[in-house]
Amino acid sequence: MTEWVTEISSSGKDSVIRGVPLEEVMDLSFTEAIWLTLTGEKPTEKEEEMFNVVLSSCVDHGLGSPSTISARTVQSGGNPMNTSVAGGILAQGESHGGAGEECMRLLQSDKSAEEIVDEYLENGERIPGLGHRVYEEKDPRTEKMFEKAEELGIAGEHISKIKEIQKIMADRKLRLALNVDGGIAGVMSDLEIEPELGKGIFIIGRVPGLVAHVREEMDEKPFRREDGVYKGK
Amino acid sequence: MTEWVTEISSSGKDSVIRGVPLEEVMDLSFTEAIWLTLTGEKPTEKEEEMFNVVLSSCVDHGLGSPSTISARTVQSGGNPMNTSVAGGILAQGESHGGAGEECMRLLQSDKSAEEIVDEYLENGERIPGLGHRVYEEKDPRTEKMFEKAEELGIAGEHISKIKEIQKIMADRKLRLALNVDGGIAGVMSDLEIEPELGKGIFIIGRVPGLVAHVREEMDEKPFRREDGVYKGK
Amino acid sequence: MTEWVTEISSSGKDSVIRGVPLEEVMDLSFTEAIWLTLTGEKPTEKEEEMFNVVLSSCVDHGLGSPSTISARTVQSGGNPMNTSVAGGILAQGESHGGAGEECMRLLQSDKSAEEIVDEYLENGERIPGLGHRVYEEKDPRTEKMFEKAEELGIAGEHISKIKEIQKIMADRKLRLALNVDGGIAGVMSDLEIEPELGKGIFIIGRVPGLVAHVREEMDEKPFRREDGVYKGK
Amino acid sequence: MTEWVTEISSSGKDSVIRGVPLEEVMDLSFTEAIWLTLTGEKPTEKEEEMFNVVLSSCVDHGLGSPSTISARTVQSGGNPMNTSVAGGILAQGESHGGAGEECMRLLQSDKSAEEIVDEYLENGERIPGLGHRVYEEKDPRTEKMFEKAEELGIAGEHISKIKEIQKIMADRKLRLALNVDGGIAGVMSDLEIEPELGKGIFIIGRVPGLVAHVREEMDEKPFRREDGVYKGK
Repeated sequence: MTEWVTEISSSGKDSVIRGVPLEEVMDLSFTEAIWLTLTGEKPTEKEEEMFNVVLSSCVDHGLGSPSTISARTVQSGGNPMNTSVAGGILAQGESHGGAGEECMRLLQSDKSAEEIVDEYLENGERIPGLGHRVYEEKDPRTEKMFEKAEELGIAGEHISKIKEIQKIMADRKLRLALNVDGGIAGVMSDLEIEPELGKGIFIIGRVPGLVAHVREEMDEKPFRREDGVYKGK
Repeated sequence: MTEWVTEISSSGKDSVIRGVPLEEVMDLSFTEAIWLTLTGEKPTEKEEEMFNVVLSSCVDHGLGSPSTISARTVQSGGNPMNTSVAGGILAQGESHGGAGEECMRLLQSDKSAEEIVDEYLENGERIPGLGHRVYEEKDPRTEKMFEKAEELGIAGEHISKIKEIQKIMADRKLRLALNVDGGIAGVMSDLEIEPELGKGIFIIGRVPGLVAHVREEMDEKPFRREDGVYKGK
Repeated sequence: MTEWVTEISSSGKDSVIRGVPLEEVMDLSFTEAIWLTLTGEKPTEKEEEMFNVVLSSCVDHGLGSPSTISARTVQSGGNPMNTSVAGGILAQGESHGGAGEECMRLLQSDKSAEEIVDEYLENGERIPGLGHRVYEEKDPRTEKMFEKAEELGIAGEHISKIKEIQKIMADRKLRLALNVDGGIAGVMSDLEIEPELGKGIFIIGRVPGLVAHVREEMDEKPFRREDGVYKGK
Repeated sequence: MTEWVTEISSSGKDSVIRGVPLEEVMDLSFTEAIWLTLTGEKPTEKEEEMFNVVLSSCVDHGLGSPSTISARTVQSGGNPMNTSVAGGILAQGESHGGAGEECMRLLQSDKSAEEIVDEYLENGERIPGLGHRVYEEKDPRTEKMFEKAEELGIAGEHISKIKEIQKIMADRKLRLALNVDGGIAGVMSDLEIEPELGKGIFIIGRVPGLVAHVREEMDEKPFRREDGVYKGK
């Protein structure tokens, strides 16, 4: 039989989270509580401020993403909040926020910016964190994130590295905006967050938007269907 | 700690399903194996034949249902088969196949056809199993199912009861087709299947279609989005 | 075909959340951003402070809840973060955080405390928000929450109502602690949050803990199984 | 906006599956209907018989697998059938039935048995389809499957290839049983099923067991928890 052991928290009387009594955790801001739960330490003020920018940037992106569509479609099948939100999170696979985690892996690897560019160009692959459907030169969210990181003294080698990747690409006539996945990856890496938590942080940031969409969908007509075309024999 | 006990099956050497050795189960048709797993008994030939009609009638319904849309949307977020199929099943809530289970509950209740009609009309509610978006008089799938049930000698009091409900409604100038949920509910009830398994059987029947749609979606462009309209402030 | 309309947010250039430009949302704390997304308004400082207490109180409860177990079990089947977190949220059904939402409905209903007690006792049902497995008299988390609500001037008719329910029960010799579900329900109701968002807020609060558990499980041996007992024939 | 196109089926009047009218599909056995939905063709009698063996072998494996545990745990949180079954399917990730799909990929690749063995041994990896926790020499389910394949004239190059892999391994003193994943992979490959459908077929086979377990769990006490140990600071 499997054994269940955890270093995260305990329940019942005297319950703690990462060694901090739950009642004390209740005095933390939610952002501090999240950081504590994920990393095992309370954040500094600057870390908290930076983490707020990251989380708030993810909070909702309208109808233009698979997670919103799947959450609302599941609700429309006649389901409660938990089932529908889960249906939204399921959609957050490799093509939906996955670039951030992959970019964190690159930035935290031993490979230099030059080596990364060479490798991706050779394989004919897109470098995660670069390029945006709408923004050609600059993604204002990434700009804002990096400014904040400078201001707080958090910007370090990882933000430098992704900027260098962008510059090397531009030198090779491939001018691409650093998108928000790249921005978050740079910031989270300079905050010493491991890539394994990248997608998880994106999910934490997105869940409030999913909750709002599921709530809104509750007032819509049930049973979403699409006028698809049958092209079979 | 929770204790785990089951009457369904065991694993490892000498594994059995409902007392039948797994190797013997492998000699059963899939339909027989499903029946055994759900009810604890092997089906008679007639039960198997009838159950085949029910399951095959559920197998797929194109793009016109939430489960197909959510399964394909989850896949388009960059997810493997299991995650995407689960995303489809999630959508099968109360408004999506739920009528069958509710109808089974009615048919197996002590209430007479007349009492049921009175109760629903009084509450201004739709009787589950009656009415169809496309078919006004007769749903050919229900017709077929009931013919088969007659032919096999399975049709009994529950199929009679739902037909009576339809007749009473028609006498009151509410002419509605018995839809396939009603058809399945009548047949499953005459097969002595409890309502608690109604939705489960619908899910078993639908999963192959979800698998096919997820497979098809793998060849599509990732990241489904909708051109929704923002009507906020 | 279904039409997609939302009042929550837009995507692309000039994207907004509830009318607030995304770049401005990035300057909000995550708690403010959540409140904005859910309610359509920025919170006051006091609302933000109170909401922080609610969210931080939910953040993790160790191995003693179904959502943790299902999230970790799904991960152990060889799954990435999004799939596993969704597996955890799925478990947050009616028996797992559902009491908070039901309690909000009661507190915001027209029924008086006395009528509620009478009704539940008559039906032999437990009043949601009352009673705790471990705490017999007082749940310190609820105490803390109500103190904070007093201090911030947020405590109003709903917190009064649940305290009154508790008192009436005690007068009838049914002495029960107000549990944290009841505490949250009272506070959220005095914050004018509708019951439909109750479960959603609990989910938002719990997701960070699920992310942490899934991350921890990644370092465990895969394939969780239980030494269950087969008691079939 | 995304366009929805399918070659699988249509809905409404005159609905078809892979070109076959739904009413005609209702005359097929469930196994035939599944095959038609997945492959676009009705199976021959022999294909149907073989496919039955594969599907029935998956139908349930007791409490010894993550999918059963997660499905039942989700139900215990107070959830209906669809949510709980989906919670089970989620657990069927890479470590849970994933070996079958990977093995199909190997068998259908251009690599020879010898090349495959060399590659895996060099990388220090387990060859999918070989080795079993309980059976050291022979897995009786695989034996049975291969006998049936011989008997039906279906056994071909892929079953030969996996047997050759096993033999080469044995020659190198690595005597391992062909497990049921390997058995299914060999059979499915000789049935000309593509690897992309491997996991999907396993899911179709497993869903009936999940439905039975969720039904059984409905009669258990809600809220599964584990007596885990907190080893944090």
